[in-house]
Amino acid sequence: MTGIAVFGAGRIGRIHASNLHQHADAQVLHVVDVVEAAAAELAASCGAKVSSVEAALADPNVGAVVIASSTDTHADLVTASARAGKAIFCEKPLDLNIETARASVKEVEKSGVVLCVGFNRRHDPSFDKLKSEIIGGAIGSVEVVTIISRDPSPPPAEYVGRSGGLFRDMMIHDLDIARWLLGEEPVRVFASGSVLVDPDIGKAGDVDTAVVVLETASGRLCHITNSRRCSYGYDQRIEVFGSEGMVRAGNATETRVEIANASGFQSEPALPFFLERYADAYRLQLDKFLRCIGGEAIQLPAGQDGLRALEIADAAQRSADEGVPINL
Amino acid sequence: MTGIAVFGAGRIGRIHASNLHQHADAQVLHVVDVVEAAAAELAASCGAKVSSVEAALADPNVGAVVIASSTDTHADLVTASARAGKAIFCEKPLDLNIETARASVKEVEKSGVVLCVGFNRRHDPSFDKLKSEIIGGAIGSVEVVTIISRDPSPPPAEYVGRSGGLFRDMMIHDLDIARWLLGEEPVRVFASGSVLVDPDIGKAGDVDTAVVVLETASGRLCHITNSRRCSYGYDQRIEVFGSEGMVRAGNATETRVEIANASGFQSEPALPFFLERYADAYRLQLDKFLRCIGGEAIQLPAGQDGLRALEIADAAQRSADEGVPINL
Amino acid sequence: MTGIAVFGAGRIGRIHASNLHQHADAQVLHVVDVVEAAAAELAASCGAKVSSVEAALADPNVGAVVIASSTDTHADLVTASARAGKAIFCEKPLDLNIETARASVKEVEKSGVVLCVGFNRRHDPSFDKLKSEIIGGAIGSVEVVTIISRDPSPPPAEYVGRSGGLFRDMMIHDLDIARWLLGEEPVRVFASGSVLVDPDIGKAGDVDTAVVVLETASGRLCHITNSRRCSYGYDQRIEVFGSEGMVRAGNATETRVEIANASGFQSEPALPFFLERYADAYRLQLDKFLRCIGGEAIQLPAGQDGLRALEIADAAQRSADEGVPINL
Amino acid sequence: MTGIAVFGAGRIGRIHASNLHQHADAQVLHVVDVVEAAAAELAASCGAKVSSVEAALADPNVGAVVIASSTDTHADLVTASARAGKAIFCEKPLDLNIETARASVKEVEKSGVVLCVGFNRRHDPSFDKLKSEIIGGAIGSVEVVTIISRDPSPPPAEYVGRSGGLFRDMMIHDLDIARWLLGEEPVRVFASGSVLVDPDIGKAGDVDTAVVVLETASGRLCHITNSRRCSYGYDQRIEVFGSEGMVRAGNATETRVEIANASGFQSEPALPFFLERYADAYRLQLDKFLRCIGGEAIQLPAGQDGLRALEIADAAQRSADEGVPINL
Repeated sequence: MTGIAVFGAGRIGRIHASNLHQHADAQVLHVVDVVEAAAAELAASCGAKVSSVEAALADPNVGAVVIASSTDTHADLVTASARAGKAIFCEKPLDLNIETARASVKEVEKSGVVLCVGFNRRHDPSFDKLKSEIIGGAIGSVEVVTIISRDPSPPPAEYVGRSGGLFRDMMIHDLDIARWLLGEEPVRVFASGSVLVDPDIGKAGDVDTAVVVLETASGRLCHITNSRRCSYGYDQRIEVFGSEGMVRAGNATETRVEIANASGFQSEPALPFFLERYADAYRLQLDKFLRCIGGEAIQLPAGQDGLRALEIADAAQRSADEGVPINL
Repeated sequence: MTGIAVFGAGRIGRIHASNLHQHADAQVLHVVDVVEAAAAELAASCGAKVSSVEAALADPNVGAVVIASSTDTHADLVTASARAGKAIFCEKPLDLNIETARASVKEVEKSGVVLCVGFNRRHDPSFDKLKSEIIGGAIGSVEVVTIISRDPSPPPAEYVGRSGGLFRDMMIHDLDIARWLLGEEPVRVFASGSVLVDPDIGKAGDVDTAVVVLETASGRLCHITNSRRCSYGYDQRIEVFGSEGMVRAGNATETRVEIANASGFQSEPALPFFLERYADAYRLQLDKFLRCIGGEAIQLPAGQDGLRALEIADAAQRSADEGVPINL
Repeated sequence: MTGIAVFGAGRIGRIHASNLHQHADAQVLHVVDVVEAAAAELAASCGAKVSSVEAALADPNVGAVVIASSTDTHADLVTASARAGKAIFCEKPLDLNIETARASVKEVEKSGVVLCVGFNRRHDPSFDKLKSEIIGGAIGSVEVVTIISRDPSPPPAEYVGRSGGLFRDMMIHDLDIARWLLGEEPVRVFASGSVLVDPDIGKAGDVDTAVVVLETASGRLCHITNSRRCSYGYDQRIEVFGSEGMVRAGNATETRVEIANASGFQSEPALPFFLERYADAYRLQLDKFLRCIGGEAIQLPAGQDGLRALEIADAAQRSADEGVPINL
Repeated sequence: MTGIAVFGAGRIGRIHASNLHQHADAQVLHVVDVVEAAAAELAASCGAKVSSVEAALADPNVGAVVIASSTDTHADLVTASARAGKAIFCEKPLDLNIETARASVKEVEKSGVVLCVGFNRRHDPSFDKLKSEIIGGAIGSVEVVTIISRDPSPPPAEYVGRSGGLFRDMMIHDLDIARWLLGEEPVRVFASGSVLVDPDIGKAGDVDTAVVVLETASGRLCHITNSRRCSYGYDQRIEVFGSEGMVRAGNATETRVEIANASGFQSEPALPFFLERYADAYRLQLDKFLRCIGGEAIQLPAGQDGLRALEIADAAQRSADEGVPINL
């Protein structure tokens, strides 16, 4: 049984706390949030107490922290938690600034604690199966990875302003998945971005539609498409083409019902957004985190993975800005 | 090169004539139809001449006949063609009366000519693949055959009156497919029919919706569903369940296009009707017939198959009328 | 918050207890089982105590009972619980003997308590959507219901002996679904059964493969296929054909992954069995039961539904035995 | 009835001649090929005579030419045919050298004859439907076009040497489709190529795997993937994402058969190669060409389309060579 402190009682914090509450080997002990009412409500729902960061980290019963607060607090919380010797689960990104992120990972490595970065998609059962099929040899040698990732609707423009931009905020998930599935580090990135969805996103200095190409040293290629809008739900598909086959994961739907009439055969749109699409992944990633703390040899996206995805996102941003490919 | 006489210049006769005209090893020499204008137009389109039955059968250059005239002429034409020593392709059914049909098949067997009954569906590439997968052992021993067969819209009530009824006119195709795929003769049939589509069909003494169960001696089962109306096209599906697997053939569509929007993912309705759905089957069955005449060892639905399907259709009709299963 | 007594600590009892334990509005107070160790373990897992039927029914804090004990105890427990004024959730069948079942339902109706029969499939999200699409008019008037239901592997022959036979034990679920989707009562049933899977099932006097046809007064038709074995998982499909369209629910799979190679495109087999396939349904049916107790107007499969399905199962058994259709 | 001269009696020439031979409004009059035996055989099969270019172009009964000879002869034949006032169907590319190609198109424009370039894929029923759905507004404004195009197996290395390279030889089809579906001219191209399939292709100075990004002035994006090898058939898929929906065309298969067993559900690989996949497209493009000659207002890929695709292919090659995006 691991005692947990949850930092952040917003949407993601609540998902994590609920998953921990239902987990047989975890107990939420502290909930911390600047909005006290939110902390109180979440703490009540899982039998925890409202705390401060300091109190939570000082509690010897706390074995691990889950950081789901606002992005600008991640690095400091990672550093403080590492120094307190707590295992750390931290939502992506570690920080929007790569140097700040690096410094916090350095502290983690110094302290030797477990750090799992919240790249939840690696834990999605479909994507996880892609990976195991690749490892199992089902498609031979990986050659081209195609990732399609589209949000159902654009975030408010004010969010865009502090998000770090599409590449760091949204595509960072796909960049992590790309590294994971390519099986090799990208050495060059080319990005092309457009404002097709919402002119206000453009005014905020960001793009809402983007295509990225990654290349590895051996010539493996990856292309990623992102859009901030999608009429048919949260579009999350991956296709990995290899020397001997192809493996792909399609969208998930709520039911398997199909209706036929004179217009043809119609099935459901994709699940609406990440809460539905990655419900299992959110649950599984904390389960693996807990098992990893418990000593199982489980590979989790670690601090270096968080840094690497951020470096590629930074390079993709520069590529889109400057119109040239960027070497990594 | 086989010289051919085509009897019947209606819709089906024209399909056969066109397929023969494009076949490298066939030449349409005679076209016969009571409607002279139809015969003339069809003859012109394939470089043949308008003839009488007698003249066509007397022509030593005619090696085979294709009988696509009205049902009540089939048996006599089969008999006359057999006596003239011509290979015979005859549209189903041989006759609505089983005794008449039997007499004509007897003549065929006496003369030793090839007789192929127009159970076109056996030649559909998808259904043909079902059969070869079964033979190849892909599903182990056949246990249950499920056949769904629905016309897009009901025929005119006056057609219904002289059609012999749904079981002899429409389901006879499915009964032949059932025998072919079960790999054993049905020994009992139970039929249940309803009038749900068009009350005029009921007034004409027929049903427009039916479900049939067939049993073989070893206990293999088959269920067939027919409807005279289907909103999403010509619904033609077969599923064969066996001890080690299942093989099924779905509907065909014109393209592979799918559209996604807030309502979901939509693909096309099934192809509209038999001319589109079985275009390949019509072409392939005549090709096999010609190759069979040419001496290749090709199994074609023969006279006994035509009789057997008709016998089961008769029994199904009786079962629906009397409300009891009928032993075959 | 409803206090619950769980009768039966076997496989199904454990599922129900676990779902109740995780439900915000339910508290398992008593667990009863003739195998005391099983009761103790289950009671411990959900903070309940091991009890006797009498003690549980005497507890004023118990608002509802969940009956998941062996079939031969259902009717007595229903009767006793009804007399004690408890709301009742009872696994199907109420009893293998229709008279015994009727007597217990009579007691329920006399006492006025809620009785929900465990026809879990009605609560499956896909089948529930079928029903709501039908009600919403998506397919016009229902004409033909097709139900395919195959277990992955046969039960031990000794289970078969006391199961009541395939029609009462397995097909009863499909018969309930048929009534629910037809929207009319079946008035006649024809059943055809075979022993194709396991000769020992035949020796035990049962069949392992069956096809059933149901007819309603207005001529709606239903065909059901059951098998005690299926190589590709737990095959659970329903298709409802109507005057203006068709709606169907396909099998569920664990992921949406597809692999392509020279053999073609391969997707996963169906989920293995009912625990996986109907996990949501088990959870949702208890949620609805609790909401119904709480006063919400929710339609649940009630005592009469349990009786009706059993009557049809009895008739199907007779039809298979005697080889004739049976009027209901 | 249009009289036709066919230049080139190789694989593609034979397809065109056969389609023309079966077309009601065309008659093949001349067949020209440097390999006289090939010309003779093809001429015989369609009732034409073996000719020289000069004789064919001098024949007043020849209304149109079909150029399917080796690439290095295309431009001269286009020029000569244009000067002779013949309508021209020319296989892609017009020439590997853009200046040579431009000069021939100039001659065509001077003479005012119809020139249709053999971008057969535009005539594929599935891709044609994509286009008409876009025009019909089904997906709103086009935003991202995704094209996946993979050959089943690499060509011999010696072919690669004279092919002009993957971008001009293979991707040129996709570049034409991209322009057609984007509805706007690309203004920039970025290409990334690798040698992953066959080292000999690399030794010949070419790549066998490539990813390309196109951008239009308004910010529409396109990504294209090509590979010279694909284990599951000829992989030809297009997906067009728009502001209000998405439309996609999947691979075609020979039948609609699916097999299920313990490994899951398996459907067929994609059709093997372009002869099968684009059989309809080859037939339809000549039909449209003939109807266009006959005066119908049909939009065909014209000389400027041939030039534009070649220009983008040249730029893609340069981008891959130099590692930078190229403005068009």
